[in-house]
Amino acid sequence: MSTAYDPGNIFAKILRGEIPAEKVYEDDDTLAFMDVMPQAEGHTLVIPKSPSRGFLDADPEVLARLIKVAQRVGRAVKTAFEADGLSVFQYNEPAGGQTVFHLHVHLVPRREGVPLKRHEGGMADKDVLARHAERIRAALRQE
Amino acid sequence: MSTAYDPGNIFAKILRGEIPAEKVYEDDDTLAFMDVMPQAEGHTLVIPKSPSRGFLDADPEVLARLIKVAQRVGRAVKTAFEADGLSVFQYNEPAGGQTVFHLHVHLVPRREGVPLKRHEGGMADKDVLARHAERIRAALRQE
Repeated sequence: MSTAYDPGNIFAKILRGEIPAEKVYEDDDTLAFMDVMPQAEGHTLVIPKSPSRGFLDADPEVLARLIKVAQRVGRAVKTAFEADGLSVFQYNEPAGGQTVFHLHVHLVPRREGVPLKRHEGGMADKDVLARHAERIRAALRQE
Repeated sequence: MSTAYDPGNIFAKILRGEIPAEKVYEDDDTLAFMDVMPQAEGHTLVIPKSPSRGFLDADPEVLARLIKVAQRVGRAVKTAFEADGLSVFQYNEPAGGQTVFHLHVHLVPRREGVPLKRHEGGMADKDVLARHAERIRAALRQE
């Protein structure tokens, strides 16, 4: 199996503006946006703008910047959804659970007694995602 | 629920040398060791030495150092167990899956078609963990 970076992946398309996303945070190096197949309300993805297939082939300095943004966005996600906890997932290669081959970190706000939905369980309503994104952006503004 | 850091947690005890662990990597800031309740062969934990309860209360610079070590150890784990992929998990608060309240990153090597075992599924054999740790240390030496 090839492990080269394929610039045709959907997150690369989002980064190039070829397909839309509900963005919650963006800087020179990093983008955060709503997962369209959320495992829980508020499920957000954080990705580096530079191309890497996954965690193991990324530039360590890219990872350092990414994790700092993931922390800030993670706090906002937890606040915005009044969550009891936060689960962070990062999957590499199909055996590791990866389905889009651009490095990404899942931030999933969790509530007591609410199990995760299956990741490929279905597309979220576009308007709902837009409202969720606005809640997270509002929480980020209040940090 | 209190979210203060409790220095009586088992990872703090490992850091203080009060209880043993099968260590695979250590530097001034970071320790990596075998999970005693592995979800797959080679399941390794990476923790900062400085106290933080989870991802959201950690010093961002601590996170930056932690993620770089997690990448190096993750590569070694994948190599040592000839894995097809790597799943990275980081859990916060009981609702988020956390059971030990010192920030930790799970590195779980994955093979095609092999589902994860339950995390609290049982203690691994001590000698098996020691052999697994040596495989990872050997892979780290060859980087």
